[in-house]
Amino acid sequence: MPQQPEATIGIGMVGYAFMGRAHSAAWHAVTRAFDVPARPRLAAICGRDKAATEEAAQRLGWASTETDWRALIDRDDVDLIDISAPGDMHASIAIAALRAGKHVLCEKPLANSLTEALAMKEAADAAYAAGARAMVGFNYRRVPALALARRLVEQGRIGTLRHVRAVYLQDWLADPQAPMTWRMQAERAGSGALGDLGAHIIDLARYLTGDEITDVSALATTFVAERPYAGESAVGMVTVDDAVVLSARLASGALASFEATRYAAGHKNGLRIELNGSAGSLAFDLERLNELEFLDRADQPGLTGFRRILVTEPYHPYLAGWWPPGHTLGWEHTFTHQAADLLTAIAEGEQPLPSFADGLAVQRVLDAAARSAAAHRWESVTR
Amino acid sequence: MPQQPEATIGIGMVGYAFMGRAHSAAWHAVTRAFDVPARPRLAAICGRDKAATEEAAQRLGWASTETDWRALIDRDDVDLIDISAPGDMHASIAIAALRAGKHVLCEKPLANSLTEALAMKEAADAAYAAGARAMVGFNYRRVPALALARRLVEQGRIGTLRHVRAVYLQDWLADPQAPMTWRMQAERAGSGALGDLGAHIIDLARYLTGDEITDVSALATTFVAERPYAGESAVGMVTVDDAVVLSARLASGALASFEATRYAAGHKNGLRIELNGSAGSLAFDLERLNELEFLDRADQPGLTGFRRILVTEPYHPYLAGWWPPGHTLGWEHTFTHQAADLLTAIAEGEQPLPSFADGLAVQRVLDAAARSAAAHRWESVTR
Amino acid sequence: MPQQPEATIGIGMVGYAFMGRAHSAAWHAVTRAFDVPARPRLAAICGRDKAATEEAAQRLGWASTETDWRALIDRDDVDLIDISAPGDMHASIAIAALRAGKHVLCEKPLANSLTEALAMKEAADAAYAAGARAMVGFNYRRVPALALARRLVEQGRIGTLRHVRAVYLQDWLADPQAPMTWRMQAERAGSGALGDLGAHIIDLARYLTGDEITDVSALATTFVAERPYAGESAVGMVTVDDAVVLSARLASGALASFEATRYAAGHKNGLRIELNGSAGSLAFDLERLNELEFLDRADQPGLTGFRRILVTEPYHPYLAGWWPPGHTLGWEHTFTHQAADLLTAIAEGEQPLPSFADGLAVQRVLDAAARSAAAHRWESVTR
Amino acid sequence: MPQQPEATIGIGMVGYAFMGRAHSAAWHAVTRAFDVPARPRLAAICGRDKAATEEAAQRLGWASTETDWRALIDRDDVDLIDISAPGDMHASIAIAALRAGKHVLCEKPLANSLTEALAMKEAADAAYAAGARAMVGFNYRRVPALALARRLVEQGRIGTLRHVRAVYLQDWLADPQAPMTWRMQAERAGSGALGDLGAHIIDLARYLTGDEITDVSALATTFVAERPYAGESAVGMVTVDDAVVLSARLASGALASFEATRYAAGHKNGLRIELNGSAGSLAFDLERLNELEFLDRADQPGLTGFRRILVTEPYHPYLAGWWPPGHTLGWEHTFTHQAADLLTAIAEGEQPLPSFADGLAVQRVLDAAARSAAAHRWESVTR
Repeated sequence: MPQQPEATIGIGMVGYAFMGRAHSAAWHAVTRAFDVPARPRLAAICGRDKAATEEAAQRLGWASTETDWRALIDRDDVDLIDISAPGDMHASIAIAALRAGKHVLCEKPLANSLTEALAMKEAADAAYAAGARAMVGFNYRRVPALALARRLVEQGRIGTLRHVRAVYLQDWLADPQAPMTWRMQAERAGSGALGDLGAHIIDLARYLTGDEITDVSALATTFVAERPYAGESAVGMVTVDDAVVLSARLASGALASFEATRYAAGHKNGLRIELNGSAGSLAFDLERLNELEFLDRADQPGLTGFRRILVTEPYHPYLAGWWPPGHTLGWEHTFTHQAADLLTAIAEGEQPLPSFADGLAVQRVLDAAARSAAAHRWESVTR
Repeated sequence: MPQQPEATIGIGMVGYAFMGRAHSAAWHAVTRAFDVPARPRLAAICGRDKAATEEAAQRLGWASTETDWRALIDRDDVDLIDISAPGDMHASIAIAALRAGKHVLCEKPLANSLTEALAMKEAADAAYAAGARAMVGFNYRRVPALALARRLVEQGRIGTLRHVRAVYLQDWLADPQAPMTWRMQAERAGSGALGDLGAHIIDLARYLTGDEITDVSALATTFVAERPYAGESAVGMVTVDDAVVLSARLASGALASFEATRYAAGHKNGLRIELNGSAGSLAFDLERLNELEFLDRADQPGLTGFRRILVTEPYHPYLAGWWPPGHTLGWEHTFTHQAADLLTAIAEGEQPLPSFADGLAVQRVLDAAARSAAAHRWESVTR
Repeated sequence: MPQQPEATIGIGMVGYAFMGRAHSAAWHAVTRAFDVPARPRLAAICGRDKAATEEAAQRLGWASTETDWRALIDRDDVDLIDISAPGDMHASIAIAALRAGKHVLCEKPLANSLTEALAMKEAADAAYAAGARAMVGFNYRRVPALALARRLVEQGRIGTLRHVRAVYLQDWLADPQAPMTWRMQAERAGSGALGDLGAHIIDLARYLTGDEITDVSALATTFVAERPYAGESAVGMVTVDDAVVLSARLASGALASFEATRYAAGHKNGLRIELNGSAGSLAFDLERLNELEFLDRADQPGLTGFRRILVTEPYHPYLAGWWPPGHTLGWEHTFTHQAADLLTAIAEGEQPLPSFADGLAVQRVLDAAARSAAAHRWESVTR
Repeated sequence: MPQQPEATIGIGMVGYAFMGRAHSAAWHAVTRAFDVPARPRLAAICGRDKAATEEAAQRLGWASTETDWRALIDRDDVDLIDISAPGDMHASIAIAALRAGKHVLCEKPLANSLTEALAMKEAADAAYAAGARAMVGFNYRRVPALALARRLVEQGRIGTLRHVRAVYLQDWLADPQAPMTWRMQAERAGSGALGDLGAHIIDLARYLTGDEITDVSALATTFVAERPYAGESAVGMVTVDDAVVLSARLASGALASFEATRYAAGHKNGLRIELNGSAGSLAFDLERLNELEFLDRADQPGLTGFRRILVTEPYHPYLAGWWPPGHTLGWEHTFTHQAADLLTAIAEGEQPLPSFADGLAVQRVLDAAARSAAAHRWESVTR
């Protein structure tokens, strides 16, 4: 059970929607399960609409509000800027914060374009020397089952990698009458399923395998071109991809396939990833967050089989401070674990992972995929 | 998303171990997802060891400490006593608190004996008129999937009940060298697997079906009679049941079977319950907390099958204030939901469920089961 | 791949309904996958209705017909009597056949009463000296996954047995208007779900564990007392149990629970059995016939989990002569495997298993269960 | 239960290895479950090695042997040529047989090259007028669960198609020391995983959706370049693909992904296919052959979920003549069902499906995939 630290670290968060709620919960919960070196102070939350921001502050437990993110960065009681705003704001805020010497946690995908991502990575590098730390919020690296999978790969338990097979299946657009949101507008979201969902599985492929994607062939489509605005008769044009299928080659020679879609009827949060290697396989399904499947070819012949490991034991990653075995965790604690790791890295002066360099690496793949889909040809991932 | 209430309610909790941690988290989290009529104030936590209690207060976010539960009850800033202590303390604390006009939330099972449970139920009845409310903490009623199951049964979706089939499988005693704890001592725990695990599935059977158990035949055993004390060479006698198998008849004529064990290798928290009726079936597994399986015989012939429902939609019980569909909840929020319902019932002057009468009803079944196992014969459940 | 034998053995079968069809298929198929010492000749099939029997002979590939089972036994070209008729005919035919020096394969359960079963077992013992062999058709012992489970138990892979948990769930009577058949009449079927379904799981418990059931407590019920005859307005009384729940103690001290029902909506052939031991667990589901789940507590801590073993490898029981790994077998080949083992035992002069003594042992449990259900008390299994 | 026909049809089969065994079993079994218009006579089996062929004839139940397939075609007692030989022999035998007026059943994939496949399709067209019928053996169309899936798609139950997601995962080459066989030699097998496994899932995608693949992007690799000959020190070069990943666009605008590999550790026969449409989804796994998963978006909100349908009911395709519900079928009966459909089509003068035109359509996709993989670019499927 965690000890409570003396030190504190002031958090300023931009955004209070879905991600803002999840991050708030994590900042509150992190000391419940982890011996973090500094206790987060939820100093200020920032949004453009003053009334809504104040209501959010009250509801989500923040001490004060700002309506201009520049003012948030300027505050002395804020040590870390948590960017939970839409993708088109990431670069400006993150760069300004880093230049001001603040630590930054930026939601994924890092940026809406490769250009932005490059600038952000440079800003992070420059700030590093000055002691500021930057992290991108690929929270699924902190699912205990996936952290365990990473550990097993590092230990050589699946041998030489052959295949990565990853899908992220949702269905909230299966209904052609589902209303328009900013997530379907290229100028806000950058891309559609590709950046929103595809970014997660591309990051996980890199994280789990330690390998790099070198070439991609992408097929993207928009199934429903126009959608009604919620409660209005007007319709808006969908300017992002609804779904994307991606083939890729990894540096090691392994093959990979990725698929991201919002039209997979019946799948709500179907992030599934499987790795096959010469010595074994690993499989995971986000809808069954607490489970990892592991196939060990070294098991006795005739007795091999995918093991359903319930990843709730004290010796599993992140689990020592939680509940007894078998008492499952929910999706929200991926953010709690992320917060714990970030606070620790900052205190120890280490680079928190995934870094902006990792975020950039994912962005390079997203960029190559977008080029590939547009040109209908294979594209190399730039280095 | 929940509004924040003006009113507050002062909570005083006895106990800070496993259950104390879970309850603390719930009192903190409840306003995040629910529009509760009063915001809980974590006024004081109570334990016998002053230093440990103070550390727990700090860690779990309580404003002050007490070392005597009587003092806790006496405090003016405490409106509700949350009893997370072992079973042998339930009756004394609950009765005193109710007599003092405090609301009570008491962990399950209600008591260690039928006599205690009867007294507690009487105290709750007496306090009700004076405005104090008592609830027993069968938290699994607040798993959204199980609350959905209850709703479907009430709507007649499974028709006439035929079968209840419930097991609660754990394996933390599978190793004969696992150390002694108070949970293996009859004088502290009352019983072993029967009261700890069996109580949950008996309560769920009542809750889900609305039916009553009338007769039971129980078979109980202690597989390992002596266990070492942790870190000591001395051994202690196990004076409770390690496992119990129970057959039961319900008032409706349906048949039921129950099993509770700490020796089911590979099962960590394997509470599984299935109902079969003339019109359909429902099945649940606590290790897959976010799922409910539903078989509807009214489906088109040839297309019937158990549906895996991911119970994470806004129209599912308790879900409206949480995350988008597919973003799963963890075990701990069963307590959050329990807290929300309790706060609401208190504010509205209603009887929170499960009541002490429900806790007593479960205790009557446990008592009949213990008598049955001892006498090796069928026993009626007293009324 | 099997060699074809020179020798043949003449088969005479009584009955041509469901079981007769399955046995016929097995006698034809056995040489396809196994090196049996004698090739079965499907000499004659016997039924009371001459026209129907002749049609069955043509359809199922039998060389001739009889309408009197005594005549079948008298035939010189018949070496083995295969009894696929209803339970009320088992004893007369089996005893006569054994006295005439014929080998006997008798469908399960062995008999409709303990008295009959005792007489049959004595007849088998007497015939054994004269060279005739008797086997009872508990075909599920020949599911490769269950034979593998038995092998693992024998090798000590699950350690000391703690629990047997077995259910046999069907739903063909879930509809109260499903018509009467002989299976619902005590005078033909002996019992209902108990003998039809319960016999299988009781036999499997004995087979898999090598343990014996010593005491039982049974709860039986008939949910629907009257049913219409198919296509008629008349109704018939159901005189057997619709469902039974059984608690049992094994000689080793392990606990067991059994349930057999025809009212489990959605379950078509849901025979599920799980064993828990001090070192591991095994689980099986007949609806997923080619799979065995195995939990090995000796696996590395943190990496234990139920392994889904696809039992289709050459080193799995019965599999060497079939298809490449992953090419699944169907239910019918349990009979093919049974035929192969029986033919081998006869050729080698060995006692085929399960013997009539095994059939009798199951019958003793069924008898105790029926007594227990009637008297509403625990009953010992006679020895 | 099937009636036995008077008419017979003489079968001559080329090949007696894995596929020959499976086809033989099917020709024997077909009358057990189906009312076929003509009973197959297993007239002659043909192989180059006389002794081995005679042994196979005895073992597999064929009346005579040939060592030259031309002689087989010439026989008057042979009405249908069943080609179970490797791919490099398909074209010669099929074309000669069709020209001789014989019906042909040819194993998949139809041919080793597009040129051959075109010639075979032309031969089939020419023979059609003369009354000879040709069919290609994509046996998985006859898995009852997949035939049910096709029926549901035809009925509009999944609405407008969005996604096809299909993999065929095996692992028999995961071990780098697994020996060379003809299946790894381009001159015999044409291709590796692509033609052997990929052909099946491409055919199924066409069959299930009724849609056509128009463009493909393929990534193929050979992980292990050299392998030892069985029992020899010499090694051979692997000249086919070990694994292939394929993205595809369908004529309807739906997206598809395919993967075929022999290196997916732990997967023995892992053909999995899923369709997502605007109204629902369907999912299938060959390792669980008797199950179909169906998600119906028209189900009541909050109660949608993938239904596990056990496809063993009389109203399911192919099931009426088999066993009671819940009694599963094995892999081999896909060939039995294929035989039944072929015999029926011949008797009725209809075109059996899949036709050589279907086989050619698959070959065009395989050809485009091979060109795509070689040229590292998108390729159109020729028409």
